[in-house]
Amino acid sequence: MKDIADFDQYDVGFDIPAKPGMDEADIQTPCLVLDLDALERNIKVMGDYAKAHGMRHRVHGKMHKSVDVAKLQETLGGAVGVCCQKVSEAEVFARGGIKDVLVSNQVRDRQKIDRLAQLPKLGGRIIVCVDDVDNVAELSEAAVRHGTELDIFIEIDCGAGRCGVSSTPAVIEIAKAVEAAPNLSFAGIQAYQGAMQHIDSYEARKEKLDTAIAMVEDAVAGLKAEGIDCELVSGGGTGSYYFESNSGVYNELQCGSYAFMDADYGRILDKDGKRIDQGEWQNAFFILTQVMSHAKADKAICDAGLKAQSVDSGLPVIFGRTDVEYVKCSDEHGVISDPEGVLKVGEKLRLVPGHCDPTANVHDWYVGVRNGKVETVWPVSARGKAY
Amino acid sequence: MKDIADFDQYDVGFDIPAKPGMDEADIQTPCLVLDLDALERNIKVMGDYAKAHGMRHRVHGKMHKSVDVAKLQETLGGAVGVCCQKVSEAEVFARGGIKDVLVSNQVRDRQKIDRLAQLPKLGGRIIVCVDDVDNVAELSEAAVRHGTELDIFIEIDCGAGRCGVSSTPAVIEIAKAVEAAPNLSFAGIQAYQGAMQHIDSYEARKEKLDTAIAMVEDAVAGLKAEGIDCELVSGGGTGSYYFESNSGVYNELQCGSYAFMDADYGRILDKDGKRIDQGEWQNAFFILTQVMSHAKADKAICDAGLKAQSVDSGLPVIFGRTDVEYVKCSDEHGVISDPEGVLKVGEKLRLVPGHCDPTANVHDWYVGVRNGKVETVWPVSARGKAY
Repeated sequence: MKDIADFDQYDVGFDIPAKPGMDEADIQTPCLVLDLDALERNIKVMGDYAKAHGMRHRVHGKMHKSVDVAKLQETLGGAVGVCCQKVSEAEVFARGGIKDVLVSNQVRDRQKIDRLAQLPKLGGRIIVCVDDVDNVAELSEAAVRHGTELDIFIEIDCGAGRCGVSSTPAVIEIAKAVEAAPNLSFAGIQAYQGAMQHIDSYEARKEKLDTAIAMVEDAVAGLKAEGIDCELVSGGGTGSYYFESNSGVYNELQCGSYAFMDADYGRILDKDGKRIDQGEWQNAFFILTQVMSHAKADKAICDAGLKAQSVDSGLPVIFGRTDVEYVKCSDEHGVISDPEGVLKVGEKLRLVPGHCDPTANVHDWYVGVRNGKVETVWPVSARGKAY
Repeated sequence: MKDIADFDQYDVGFDIPAKPGMDEADIQTPCLVLDLDALERNIKVMGDYAKAHGMRHRVHGKMHKSVDVAKLQETLGGAVGVCCQKVSEAEVFARGGIKDVLVSNQVRDRQKIDRLAQLPKLGGRIIVCVDDVDNVAELSEAAVRHGTELDIFIEIDCGAGRCGVSSTPAVIEIAKAVEAAPNLSFAGIQAYQGAMQHIDSYEARKEKLDTAIAMVEDAVAGLKAEGIDCELVSGGGTGSYYFESNSGVYNELQCGSYAFMDADYGRILDKDGKRIDQGEWQNAFFILTQVMSHAKADKAICDAGLKAQSVDSGLPVIFGRTDVEYVKCSDEHGVISDPEGVLKVGEKLRLVPGHCDPTANVHDWYVGVRNGKVETVWPVSARGKAY
């Protein structure tokens, strides 16, 4: 630990929780910590899997919102590019040097369409999802105006219950409109079954995916009958990628959470009934928190509450501990049950958040650690980019 | 609405959702919108109440994290300063010109203490809460080192179940240590009953507050018997301020949510059994969202999901509408039940979020609107300031 006299007021804390070279003990809390060994391991494992199965891996950048993590996924994991959910995220990734960016979502606002249509000028491929034939003309008009080309995925709602069309005729109708529209190219199908990713049972997940795969197969065959080829069939998440990879119809994965893991995903089971955070993936993503009060003997209060995480998928789990439990959450406090009174004020703990994506989105920095030292500090490049 | 050709790529959307003078219809979504008429009205009403009851009002800056809103609370509402929960928030408010800043929380980390002890150099009063006698020496040492003075509140846990001591002897022990410590002054008591604020029934809230007030009275009397006067007795929130104001023992309020309102607070009842968002306060704080897909006839998908809000206190409510309902939330999507199919793609809706504080914390900007025009765009000055 550094001597307190060696810090100045702006050194860490005010805008940044740590600096490279610093001891892990000196990191300011609450903040996000990445275990770089675990992160690199997860990225390599998924990259190797995709390669072995002949799948492209378009990593989901909306999970981490980080250009640095996306580039690590390209270099270590052979990622072919990213997907993301917002035009403002696509702007960050495209400007950050990612050359193949899919907005795996609908873009309907006229200003957002206008911004999207300018992104190919940065030199990469830009793909966007469509689920309404009216959107085709909007996108084409903007691309023509800016002299750019946009690639189009047609989104099928294969069970997520959000955006996407529900039938093969609807897919064909939109695909024909795309083929006829200036400055647009039909590039394939987006079919991500989001709702099933967090179902615990492997067999229950497989059943949902079988239905999704059947819808996609029907759409691909329907397009083929009309003389329209699908270059890409894209989808798959951390709870399903093996189903898409072995489907014979998908050729691109879109996994996100595998790289970080979180408590909610960690609880789902692999085909042998084992939690996926106990072998398949390693926890690489933590909220570092500090005990700030222990005025009651059996209760420690830590400094990570609702503003340090999202609790939509449950409370965080204290990593590597069974003697203490994070039991309650308010804006700036976490209440930790400590029946034996083992925690001390000032002690730091790693929390595995319930849900990694919206938790990353409240922080400005990732602190990458290895062997007890801060190795790197990366911005959460697209934090708050929601427009 | 502005013509699309009159926008450039960096005009709005990439980093900022709107600009002053713009039509409300051109605001980029999802973003935070403040109804300035309602906001000013709420601030004036609470200011008048505090004045009429001889109470100081130290507004809770952790709710809005905005220097601009805090200054409006000073000028329109007679606020005496702010409280906040983190040293990094105090840094923002003190640098922003707020002259009386309370960190209504414990500061135990050595670097945070070091930063806190430097804040009085900016020329204002800095107060911090203590619930452990060991903390007194830590704070004193840092204040001495920096040649500054820190004021100390002793925090009583009067029912929130987080930080704070639980007995009058513990208060007296810490107060004596403060009085004996160089560069520290005992300034009073922090006694905020956070856990009761959201109980629906007025009578049930009153019962909890009666218990809290009795604890505080006992502590004040105990201190007096030792010859120690309490300059300030501080506490009170949007669901309780009338109890503290009429207690005869509190002299400072710490209300936050009254200025913005949210769906969870809105549901609590006043003494006449009326929802507090139906007369006592007005909704001034909204997430503006846009319908981005309506591929299913009875379901509209909007662009505000988990990354545009915190759902810890429930889903948002669509303001002013009973024909459509926000029923489900994922990272970037909200699912709106639209049984009659009345919503159109591109349509904008105002959502009242479940919980204002952590929702403000995911956004970078407040867009202030009046009469259909954007009047101001304020940064969420202390967004993400969690250290």
